[in-house]
Amino acid sequence: MGNADDINSSADNYNWDAAGRHRVAVPPPQPFVKSLKNTLKETFFPDDPLRQFKNQPPRKKFILGLQYVFPILEWGPRYTMPFFRADLIAGITIASLAIPQGISYAKLANLPPILGLYSSFVPALVYAVMGSSRDLAVGTVAVGSLLMASMLGNVVNVQENPKLYLHLAFTATFFTGLFEAALGIFRLGFIVDFLSHATIVGFMGGAATVVCLQQLKGILGLDHFTHATDVISVMRSIFSQTHLWRWESALLGCVFLFYLLSSRYFSKKSPRLFWISAMAPLTSVILGSILVYLTHAEKHGVQVIGHLKKGINPPSIMDLNFDSTYLPTAIKTGIVTGVISLAEGIAVGRSFAMFKNYHIDGNKEMIAFGMMNIVGSCTSCYLTTGPFSRSAVNFNAGCKTAVSNIVMALSVMITLLFLTPLFHYTPLVVLSAIIIAAMLGIIDYEAAIHLWHVDKFDFLVCLSAYIGVVFANIEIGLVMAIGLSILRVLLFVARPRTLVLGNIPDSKVYRSVDQYQNAHNVPGILILEIDAPIYFANTNYLRERISRWIDDEEDKLKTSGETAALQYVILDLTAVGNIDTSGISMLDEVKKIMDRRGLKLALANPGAEVMKKLNKSKFLETIGQEWIFLTVGEAVGACNYMLHSCNTKTTSDVSEKYSNNV
Amino acid sequence: MGNADDINSSADNYNWDAAGRHRVAVPPPQPFVKSLKNTLKETFFPDDPLRQFKNQPPRKKFILGLQYVFPILEWGPRYTMPFFRADLIAGITIASLAIPQGISYAKLANLPPILGLYSSFVPALVYAVMGSSRDLAVGTVAVGSLLMASMLGNVVNVQENPKLYLHLAFTATFFTGLFEAALGIFRLGFIVDFLSHATIVGFMGGAATVVCLQQLKGILGLDHFTHATDVISVMRSIFSQTHLWRWESALLGCVFLFYLLSSRYFSKKSPRLFWISAMAPLTSVILGSILVYLTHAEKHGVQVIGHLKKGINPPSIMDLNFDSTYLPTAIKTGIVTGVISLAEGIAVGRSFAMFKNYHIDGNKEMIAFGMMNIVGSCTSCYLTTGPFSRSAVNFNAGCKTAVSNIVMALSVMITLLFLTPLFHYTPLVVLSAIIIAAMLGIIDYEAAIHLWHVDKFDFLVCLSAYIGVVFANIEIGLVMAIGLSILRVLLFVARPRTLVLGNIPDSKVYRSVDQYQNAHNVPGILILEIDAPIYFANTNYLRERISRWIDDEEDKLKTSGETAALQYVILDLTAVGNIDTSGISMLDEVKKIMDRRGLKLALANPGAEVMKKLNKSKFLETIGQEWIFLTVGEAVGACNYMLHSCNTKTTSDVSEKYSNNV
Repeated sequence: MGNADDINSSADNYNWDAAGRHRVAVPPPQPFVKSLKNTLKETFFPDDPLRQFKNQPPRKKFILGLQYVFPILEWGPRYTMPFFRADLIAGITIASLAIPQGISYAKLANLPPILGLYSSFVPALVYAVMGSSRDLAVGTVAVGSLLMASMLGNVVNVQENPKLYLHLAFTATFFTGLFEAALGIFRLGFIVDFLSHATIVGFMGGAATVVCLQQLKGILGLDHFTHATDVISVMRSIFSQTHLWRWESALLGCVFLFYLLSSRYFSKKSPRLFWISAMAPLTSVILGSILVYLTHAEKHGVQVIGHLKKGINPPSIMDLNFDSTYLPTAIKTGIVTGVISLAEGIAVGRSFAMFKNYHIDGNKEMIAFGMMNIVGSCTSCYLTTGPFSRSAVNFNAGCKTAVSNIVMALSVMITLLFLTPLFHYTPLVVLSAIIIAAMLGIIDYEAAIHLWHVDKFDFLVCLSAYIGVVFANIEIGLVMAIGLSILRVLLFVARPRTLVLGNIPDSKVYRSVDQYQNAHNVPGILILEIDAPIYFANTNYLRERISRWIDDEEDKLKTSGETAALQYVILDLTAVGNIDTSGISMLDEVKKIMDRRGLKLALANPGAEVMKKLNKSKFLETIGQEWIFLTVGEAVGACNYMLHSCNTKTTSDVSEKYSNNV
Repeated sequence: MGNADDINSSADNYNWDAAGRHRVAVPPPQPFVKSLKNTLKETFFPDDPLRQFKNQPPRKKFILGLQYVFPILEWGPRYTMPFFRADLIAGITIASLAIPQGISYAKLANLPPILGLYSSFVPALVYAVMGSSRDLAVGTVAVGSLLMASMLGNVVNVQENPKLYLHLAFTATFFTGLFEAALGIFRLGFIVDFLSHATIVGFMGGAATVVCLQQLKGILGLDHFTHATDVISVMRSIFSQTHLWRWESALLGCVFLFYLLSSRYFSKKSPRLFWISAMAPLTSVILGSILVYLTHAEKHGVQVIGHLKKGINPPSIMDLNFDSTYLPTAIKTGIVTGVISLAEGIAVGRSFAMFKNYHIDGNKEMIAFGMMNIVGSCTSCYLTTGPFSRSAVNFNAGCKTAVSNIVMALSVMITLLFLTPLFHYTPLVVLSAIIIAAMLGIIDYEAAIHLWHVDKFDFLVCLSAYIGVVFANIEIGLVMAIGLSILRVLLFVARPRTLVLGNIPDSKVYRSVDQYQNAHNVPGILILEIDAPIYFANTNYLRERISRWIDDEEDKLKTSGETAALQYVILDLTAVGNIDTSGISMLDEVKKIMDRRGLKLALANPGAEVMKKLNKSKFLETIGQEWIFLTVGEAVGACNYMLHSCNTKTTSDVSEKYSNNV
């Protein structure tokens, strides 16, 4: 038979070779440019976003292109009055959540509270025009705010230089936007995929814990507090000033926290009552402000927001600070907060789209998020994304389109123009209670328990993210979790499983004897399945492991007193998706080892990529095309035939005879 | 049927379920500790090094243990006179190579030439006692020497502070030894596996190019030369001092280079003449020295070695410098040169062991290399490993055991004690010629061409290592190549191939329609094979891609005017080695998408790990055990049965009926 190139030449003889076996095809050669194009397409355009542009006239293409960038042009013309009624209610509902949350999170980021309101105005409008989710509600997030505070706090002391700090926050937001938009434009959105579910559960849980701990400052009415976020520093900071704890503040905080948590409890019990929980923060703020105003508690240790400037967002484009001293920090902060907020925003968009059965293009969403933050950074806003809690309220309130974001933005605008003085007496402790209540909902211990049950390694990733965030800092936790996740992928490839296969009774099917207790070995033949691509990282391992399987098998035969010696080793390559040059050298070596031990090597079901490379590297000639089989069953059949028809001769005679035969 | 736990309960009914199909087994549950132990064993002890210790009495265990650490105890007692005759010849041959090479490479490392001789003495003795290769010849290497010079040169100027530089070289060697021994002891040798063959070809080629370029200094007789290693700096340095070029030196260099290269050429033509090439460096040194002595060329621009101290290695343990200013550099240099020299040494040992059919334990070799460098660093030696060229000469000279290393060490000792004055007139240009001749043999352009033919990505890795080393510096080249290799593994997982399967005529076998041109689709059923583990990094991709396959299939059916609509999607999970919790969520979502589109999802041949997790996560209940099949063939059979027996009913009716049936 010889060369593999012969295979396609004899057309009338295509399916079967002379020995009556199926042939294993070498895939038809592809020009390099074409296969490169294919690879690039699968890497960067797996969802084929240009599908709808195919075979369209240029004018239509232009319109489709505009609609692609500005989805509002697509759904806008079909917008109806009943939709508007639904969006109006949803928009007002999320505005009632956005105002207190915005103020709270801005405090968390060490920024002026008014920025929280600014940030619910402009970015929401940008997203309404460019975003493709119908349920996402735009706003700031607690974790991102805290992350920004801790990263920027490393280089600027906010007490000493609040203006520089503010400008760096705008600059970091600008870079967040730039980074997000770039990921989307260059179709690199899959980078976000490297944040696994387990990482996010652990990281979010840890961040929420840290945020809650930070609120103890507000609840206990403390003036001085550590800048570190880890649990040990925070605890030390709190218990070193027990004499400064204010019971008035703590009492107020606990009462409002109880109110917020119980309202959520009732809402959870009956989804129709979601508005109780949605309205709770605003009612807390109103009640708290009235209470302070009436009792003048601000003079008895209850800190209040104080003066808020009237008027909508001032421009901040001139405040962006590209000074080389701070640039690296600004860029780093921008990228880290960008990744985290993208991960949340994209996941939220996808979940609701999945629920309502429409499609979201992740890369397109990233461009929308990016533009929202770029425009935001020029109009006195800081980091925004699509927070889960607010989007869930939006969804429950029955929103139909992104118009609910416009309604929210306008409500916030009215607040900014006319209602800011009303927040003068809002006690900070109420804001802390709002944050704690929101954060307690984020700590998803049930998901962690689920991870433990299903996948111990995922649980380890989750736990290390949590511990890293809580005991070290947010960045360390994130790096640990991502590092572990990637290590797992590398370990999967570096230490692939090799399985011994046996015959399932009454069939020609061969399956792992560990999984199928009824599968039984074929005497004289060892069948191994390799469960991963054969790459440089695992070639040494696989060579050792295959040798060890052979040793084990021979030992077993010896101790069991079988007369039939091991004669054939069949490698099932079904699960070997790819092979590199190191892998081919390894197969060469395995072949040599087998030859020396008087064993014959057969391969079953190599895939297209593997066949192509075996052919190009001439390994097909080394092993002989007649030792490559379409299925394990056929390989066993051929080996058995040789074993039984000529078992007086030596193995090499047999194979020679067989290959001459073929 | 319901729960998967039922499977193992009905023993008499094990192989087949009520519908006459094979059951897919959920593997029997394993206690967590046991599976953890298994995983750790496969990760760290894949070659089962303790196999021989099993079931042995304690005394025997102790002896085996000693022999494990000191292999000389194992082969020493069986050593015979004929072996010694062979080893004596081989040892003298490699000594004749070791002396000139040792001096040359020490110059390359900016160290006193005598260190090259020291380094062929003590480490060779240590390796002879602890090493398990019979063919490896110990010595210094050009690439490692250059790497050390460039890394230590970053912090210490060798001209200004030669003593500090020397001490740092010992310290770096000490850390190399510590690192190598630690890798071996903690069985982390697989870290070296992450240097793929392609990386090594590119890196070695690049390093050899750089080393050759550095020799232009010696050949042209220049005094001042750049410290940078990149090609641009070197060229600029050379052509900026054309007026200082010495023709006497250049002529001598070219003559000897010609002699060395032609001797290698003849040796290659006839392997029996290997000794011509093996002796050529020493004869060059002798001829060159005599020539200079007779013509007094050292006064006409030909630089000579000059005075070499008599006597064997002085102790250097007190010279190790752990000053915190230089410690990070010493550690970094130690680790980088350690990885590189391990990669070479282990590969050399393995290749010859493969050739002569004995086994080498990589981790054990690492301990031997580590001890050799630790002891070396305390006895005035610098970085040693098992260089390929010297080991090949050893092998060709017919060495039988590590005794040839002892012979070499003793020859070098005699040289150190009595013959060093003879090297006074050895011209440096001859050493440069020796280095260039050795390096030209390392640039393996044929391997690079082979990589291009077989695997384009491997070629890219190789090329980027080469370009990185030649145009930037050695470390950048190494980092680029390793980064690309790891990126490839990650991309394999992040962008797994999904293949459409079709039926191979006259069989129940289903294979990729791209690979097998004769495989044909089954009407109404789309069969997809997923070619990688389903991990967080690819879940989003796979969801999009599966949707796109369904879109494509439906488009195809529409345009071809088929009446039969797509009704079933079968996912073949044979090649899915593992799944994590993100992957299970993805399957959940795919199931929901299918439900919405009125399609039925079936899984074929999930492996043990996958079944275990599907079971634990309750996905088995979501999809229904009756939709999981042992083979694609059975899945297609069941779908076809439903399609044809009840094709007037809706799909959901059918499946309901079918599942009630089962």
